[in-house]
Amino acid sequence: MTETDSIAYDVVVLGAGPVGENVADRTRAAGLSTAVVESELVGGECSYWACMPSKALLRPVIARADARRVPGLRQSVHGPLDAPAVLAHRDYYTSHWKDDGQARWLDGIGADLHRGHGRLTGPRTVTVTGPDGTRRVLTARHAVAVCTGSRAALPGLPGIDEVRPWTSREATSAPAVPGRLVVVGGGVVATEMATVWQALGSKVTMLVRGKGLLARMEPFAGELVAEALSEAGADVRTGTSVESVTRENGTVVVVTDAGDRIEADEILFATGRAPRTDDIGLETVGLEPGSWLDVDDSLRVTGHDWLYAVGDVNQRALLTHQGKYQARIAGAAIAARATGETLLAEAWGAHAATADHAAVPQVVFTDPEAAAVGLSLAEAEQAGHRVRAVDVDLSSVAGAGLYADGYKGRARMVVDLEDEILRGVTLVGPGVGELIHSATVAVAGQVPISRLWHAVPSYPTISEVWLRLLEAYRDN
Amino acid sequence: MTETDSIAYDVVVLGAGPVGENVADRTRAAGLSTAVVESELVGGECSYWACMPSKALLRPVIARADARRVPGLRQSVHGPLDAPAVLAHRDYYTSHWKDDGQARWLDGIGADLHRGHGRLTGPRTVTVTGPDGTRRVLTARHAVAVCTGSRAALPGLPGIDEVRPWTSREATSAPAVPGRLVVVGGGVVATEMATVWQALGSKVTMLVRGKGLLARMEPFAGELVAEALSEAGADVRTGTSVESVTRENGTVVVVTDAGDRIEADEILFATGRAPRTDDIGLETVGLEPGSWLDVDDSLRVTGHDWLYAVGDVNQRALLTHQGKYQARIAGAAIAARATGETLLAEAWGAHAATADHAAVPQVVFTDPEAAAVGLSLAEAEQAGHRVRAVDVDLSSVAGAGLYADGYKGRARMVVDLEDEILRGVTLVGPGVGELIHSATVAVAGQVPISRLWHAVPSYPTISEVWLRLLEAYRDN
Repeated sequence: MTETDSIAYDVVVLGAGPVGENVADRTRAAGLSTAVVESELVGGECSYWACMPSKALLRPVIARADARRVPGLRQSVHGPLDAPAVLAHRDYYTSHWKDDGQARWLDGIGADLHRGHGRLTGPRTVTVTGPDGTRRVLTARHAVAVCTGSRAALPGLPGIDEVRPWTSREATSAPAVPGRLVVVGGGVVATEMATVWQALGSKVTMLVRGKGLLARMEPFAGELVAEALSEAGADVRTGTSVESVTRENGTVVVVTDAGDRIEADEILFATGRAPRTDDIGLETVGLEPGSWLDVDDSLRVTGHDWLYAVGDVNQRALLTHQGKYQARIAGAAIAARATGETLLAEAWGAHAATADHAAVPQVVFTDPEAAAVGLSLAEAEQAGHRVRAVDVDLSSVAGAGLYADGYKGRARMVVDLEDEILRGVTLVGPGVGELIHSATVAVAGQVPISRLWHAVPSYPTISEVWLRLLEAYRDN
Repeated sequence: MTETDSIAYDVVVLGAGPVGENVADRTRAAGLSTAVVESELVGGECSYWACMPSKALLRPVIARADARRVPGLRQSVHGPLDAPAVLAHRDYYTSHWKDDGQARWLDGIGADLHRGHGRLTGPRTVTVTGPDGTRRVLTARHAVAVCTGSRAALPGLPGIDEVRPWTSREATSAPAVPGRLVVVGGGVVATEMATVWQALGSKVTMLVRGKGLLARMEPFAGELVAEALSEAGADVRTGTSVESVTRENGTVVVVTDAGDRIEADEILFATGRAPRTDDIGLETVGLEPGSWLDVDDSLRVTGHDWLYAVGDVNQRALLTHQGKYQARIAGAAIAARATGETLLAEAWGAHAATADHAAVPQVVFTDPEAAAVGLSLAEAEQAGHRVRAVDVDLSSVAGAGLYADGYKGRARMVVDLEDEILRGVTLVGPGVGELIHSATVAVAGQVPISRLWHAVPSYPTISEVWLRLLEAYRDN
């Protein structure tokens, strides 16, 4: 094989994270020959530096907190978490950062894996530079799908690189517990990682520029999580920015805009994401390198009938599950267009990622858990919907009190007053993570309030919050 | 007040369990004067001898099992449950079998509580014999609602009364842990109580007449629960009947039809329920004392336009939450008929308990939890639906493995092939109790498969089983 080798495929997928894998799965299922290009590990961010390690780290923290809230059990839960055992379990769940299993899976579905850096070199053409410097040109008869995801975006502080700051990658893969950790940011990564490392023994200080945590959710989500983090011993400072950061003799020194000086062993910047599109040859097809890519509901890039952008890169919803959803739809749309099948592109059709606009779910695995789907009250109002929000204190639900002594939590349902369907639901409290899917079915299914009265929650589960929400809507 | 006192109400409710309370809540909300008659405790079976105490007893058992399955946490969970603390918590949750709080609640909604034994003494008339022997005649302008519930049905074994057997009442209220406990039966009460007492230190033997446990659910539910009970140390004997039972010097002696002799300290009969209608004057209105009462979908007794039977007594679904659902509908129907409002009695209307036929949910709080809604495959086929069932091994779901090391569980979705909606869903495994409500919304909401693809489960939750179920349906 020489530099000028060229291989023709029906579909070329750039990036073998869960999104790329799912695009390939669908195009292969339709019988289209498919190449997948990956410059790092097959399985992507989620498998090695995000969902999997973070949840493997968080589950023991949450389970311990849950156990400590159960009378008759709390007495037998002693001492702190076994941090080395937790870290070892995390290593197991990331397959020790090896991708053999996932590469085998790609092989199993009949997709060709090309390891190396892939760049567009013109329409329908991707050139892969292998680890050994060799080049291959892959051509795509039907579609190229950009699934390269996102990376942590560091703020432009002078000398930040010399500090060797943690991003989500280091925070999820650290081999040992730092004594003192500063977490900059207040979003999902920041709150989850503050939760983990505080529970594993770090002294955590959170520096949050905004007024509160989890700013994209209903305000009470961030309030309850902040309160719990503080109770767990973390120092949560909102309305605080980093003025400067240096590393002196191994110690990180942060100065805040309030003039406070904080010393730490590590500092995590969880301050946003940037698209991984800066070095993938976008300029060769008239697109801006480093930009998020605009797509229609079939995930096709505006103005390019052969180019798809799926997952984080299109900035519709930076969540693994939503990227996988888009991937199923993009894969099916590519296949439908390739074979001349009818495109089902109307809202909620098989080739339209309608849920991206209306029913994106998210679970933040903190203690308490914070889960939401669809629009917050503010978002719904901003979108021009005529809505009413009703709130319920979760401690009023029998199943919640039985789940955890002294249960603290809150729920909100945002109802569209035109057709009495739900625009959004937010649940915050221990054990609500699995409960949000009932709301996702209701929101995506556009199940009207009158029918939700017939969806009876089992007594006594926390799900009975549904009854309280419906009553609150009826009676107020 | 003398024996001949008579008080006129719009509505008279017989029985102040959760069902009677909810009927009264709805008729009072409509401005109808309402009397509630109770011979025992306001709050009923559920509050004192069923849901509340059983779940207060079960939660620590399940939480401990969950904690022991989490790497990094299991190491710090030592010793058995603190049984006295668990029992004390149960006592707290039953308000020490005092009903002041619930009586205050009735008062708060403006319903009149009449303590004593209520009997129909003709159409629209209930006579209450108070604890002191005085009598009051309550007349009902619009409706009498029978909400007297059910009691444990003991088998007709000779001498069974002298054995002083446990029923669900004693099993949920016992002040101490018996050394050896025989549980007769394999249904919900039997499996939950075997789970509790085995975990609190009893040596439990289950005698199950049928082939397996939880016979009304999909077969794998009973299989997984039986396996786990056996692993926990219980002796589960299926296909086994009690031939005789005696108590000798305090010790219970059971002889089975296999000729085995088992000694125990207590024996629980969880062998079914009978309606509490034997002494409520049904004969005075032409109905059979001791019978279950036939009702239409507005919960009105066949042939009596003023008589309603709500909750267990109508045998539609012997579950607190389903009785409460019926109560909301019956109360609203009574109010609509009383005020001349339009009755919304079509399927899924506000005055039709349609979910009783199509979407009854149940959670069995064993370890693993077993949860189901709607019809099992066998029930759906028997009902003449053209259906297909798809199964998923829950251990294949990333969120399940993260929830519990070595996760064991199973899910089944029964799809109606005519309109591609769900007829039923069953989930068995740790942590699935809150997950079933997503299926309840899907089944009651008649959300089609094509739309369920847009209800994205958060990654990595156990709810992702939905994706696996949809894939299994698509690909097989």
